Amino acid sequence: MAEDFVPDIVIRRLPSYLQTLNQMAKEGLHTVSSVMLAERVGTTAAQIRKDLSYFGGFGKQGTGYSIYVLIEELQKILNLDRIWKVAIVGAGNLGRALSRYQGFANRGIDICLLFDNHPDVVGTQVGSLVVRHVDTMIADIQEQAVKMAILTLPGEAAQTTADQLVMAGVGAILNYTPTTLKLPDHVHVEHIDPVLQLQRMMYYLDED
Amino acid sequence: MAEDFVPDIVIRRLPSYLQTLNQMAKEGLHTVSSVMLAERVGTTAAQIRKDLSYFGGFGKQGTGYSIYVLIEELQKILNLDRIWKVAIVGAGNLGRALSRYQGFANRGIDICLLFDNHPDVVGTQVGSLVVRHVDTMIADIQEQAVKMAILTLPGEAAQTTADQLVMAGVGAILNYTPTTLKLPDHVHVEHIDPVLQLQRMMYYLDED
Repeated sequence: MAEDFVPDIVIRRLPSYLQTLNQMAKEGLHTVSSVMLAERVGTTAAQIRKDLSYFGGFGKQGTGYSIYVLIEELQKILNLDRIWKVAIVGAGNLGRALSRYQGFANRGIDICLLFDNHPDVVGTQVGSLVVRHVDTMIADIQEQAVKMAILTLPGEAAQTTADQLVMAGVGAILNYTPTTLKLPDHVHVEHIDPVLQLQRMMYYLDED
Repeated sequence: MAEDFVPDIVIRRLPSYLQTLNQMAKEGLHTVSSVMLAERVGTTAAQIRKDLSYFGGFGKQGTGYSIYVLIEELQKILNLDRIWKVAIVGAGNLGRALSRYQGFANRGIDICLLFDNHPDVVGTQVGSLVVRHVDTMIADIQEQAVKMAILTLPGEAAQTTADQLVMAGVGAILNYTPTTLKLPDHVHVEHIDPVLQLQRMMYYLDED
């Protein structure tokens, strides 16, 4: 594979390709053209061919891609050929919903720790997890060598908690709080702010 | 303003600029250079200048941007100078958490309708809203002229519900379900799938 520097924007598209390919495999399909895949993903065939070319291509001219091979290769590229342990910090409505979310298990994600600081919540059962106190967060994360965390706590506590997570060895944070985190460059953050997401679409609702 | 065709990727960055500028205004700042803004947003000064140039620039060489002017202009561009009504479909943990989310009100978003189909949930109070039955969804959305919706229901029901929302006049959907929606081109969808978001970061966790 010719995998030197791959732009982040390309990496960000690969999980959607993989999701669509998995769906196609479930439907019993074996091969797919870049045109077909593009239509399902909602992009162009040229984009897909260009993105995959960073990793050596995988397709033969005229015959399309083997769905099975492409799934396997994308999983390897994205490091999905293993189980990733993830900690959730904040056991409110959202944290509890995510802890119980059925979509993680068969997609390589193991939610193994759930933290909160509220005495009423610590010690309670959420799905298969017991909520732990944030006081033991650093130790627990180090012990289990957790590298990813999801922040679902109030925005005021987000930065301090994120700093502690990074100190404990976490390298990727999915941030559901309204706070924009300032973290070292080696830490990867995805910020999920429903307001920003809605605002991105309002531009297009201008017409009426 | 020289606003002809603006690439979607530019539009998608503007809400983050705006969020950071609002934060700076709160901190009592009046002007900002593209370098300072870039550092806070986590991008480059050249990127910010290029993005803003689509709308005519706003900055004078050497003096930076007026934070107040920039906030006002970005709000106009993004259609944030009004209140947008939003419906949430699915009153489970996530739907309830979003209905109560404090960050909407002062950022131009009015969650005005909340739907579910479960008899135990319909009629219950969530924050300031009473959960309505999805059977009246189309009529309620048309009556209130709602143009945006958030999907927080099980994935199996997502496509059918989205089709109904579009029929009722919704033009922008924030999709929290695992289902990839197929909708007409004029409808804008933002898909929030925690699995995809985590997978986008796993690529970078390769080292250890």
